[in-house]
Amino acid sequence: MERGKLVVVSGFSGTGKGTIIKQLIERYGYSLSISATTRAPREGEVDGREYYFKSTEEFLSLVDYNGLIEWTKYVDNYYGTPRKFVEEELAQGKTVILEIEVKGASNIKAQYPDAVLIFVTTKDIATLRERLEKRGTETAEVINKRISRAADEAELMDNYDYIIVNDDLEDCIDAVHSVIISDDYKTENSLDFVKKIQGELAEYK
Amino acid sequence: MERGKLVVVSGFSGTGKGTIIKQLIERYGYSLSISATTRAPREGEVDGREYYFKSTEEFLSLVDYNGLIEWTKYVDNYYGTPRKFVEEELAQGKTVILEIEVKGASNIKAQYPDAVLIFVTTKDIATLRERLEKRGTETAEVINKRISRAADEAELMDNYDYIIVNDDLEDCIDAVHSVIISDDYKTENSLDFVKKIQGELAEYK
Repeated sequence: MERGKLVVVSGFSGTGKGTIIKQLIERYGYSLSISATTRAPREGEVDGREYYFKSTEEFLSLVDYNGLIEWTKYVDNYYGTPRKFVEEELAQGKTVILEIEVKGASNIKAQYPDAVLIFVTTKDIATLRERLEKRGTETAEVINKRISRAADEAELMDNYDYIIVNDDLEDCIDAVHSVIISDDYKTENSLDFVKKIQGELAEYK
Repeated sequence: MERGKLVVVSGFSGTGKGTIIKQLIERYGYSLSISATTRAPREGEVDGREYYFKSTEEFLSLVDYNGLIEWTKYVDNYYGTPRKFVEEELAQGKTVILEIEVKGASNIKAQYPDAVLIFVTTKDIATLRERLEKRGTETAEVINKRISRAADEAELMDNYDYIIVNDDLEDCIDAVHSVIISDDYKTENSLDFVKKIQGELAEYK
């Protein structure tokens, strides 16, 4: 069976990438990789749905046993991508989506050069701020922190294969889906097939 | 206004690329470039719809005046792509589809490096032969000639950006459409936008 494809989706906080990913999974049956974290569950969060919630000891043991593809510490908590699920899904030919921050994305690309890296953004930063403010759940200070974090993340935007603006949600979902599909058809990913066809035609030359 | 995109579609005779292109134009409003030719119109063909039918003198005058983006002689007839239509449509931001053979496609890429080159093929050559035979309009000799031509064309398949197998027509139309859309989102085609976003965020660093 042909190996599946790893798709990394990153984007500034507030770009709506969570909604986009949720829709892609519902509509097209992609697999979602769930991160492990040491941060405490928020209200309504379920272990194994939003995150695998781990103690610091458990998390560091995963790190020791090479059980994470990538991991990072953010503020006081660890976050990481469990290797087992990703590898099993890829082996079954599935497309696996990882929602991950920019440094993790670079680590993924180093280990999985065929991964498709997609960065989702608003069309400008005024729109980003507007969306963060509209949520109404965060203080001005938190919003400024998120935008300041976006400034750091933007430095690594050109590491991504695709940049997609989330202006209209449906268009954005279509765009991400198109990008995932089209990757299969790149000539560089079809060289064995090209050779096969050329071989079949050799006798007619 | 942003300049449009040139899409070149090639493929072996019998792969169904004509049908695919027709559907793309109907569904998504792409522009179709009509070739000029010196070959005589077949029954039912209309000047300006299938081809612009030209005398040899008219055709060679177009060549002299740089009125064709590319041209070629095949058997005893000339074929070429009029420059004016393509340039006008691109200037209006439209996506223009050219159906063209493999050598013409290389010429296009040399002049329009941003052109998206798509090669449509059957999944194998047995299927290609089957489709040509099913048409029932061609003699065994003509079919063999077409396959022998496919053997030459296959040599240049890896010049294309994308290789798409036409196994299921709907899937194939979706694939070609996805490839055209996704090209817009390539980071290499979004570098100005990335700079703009990085600029807007610079004050938050």
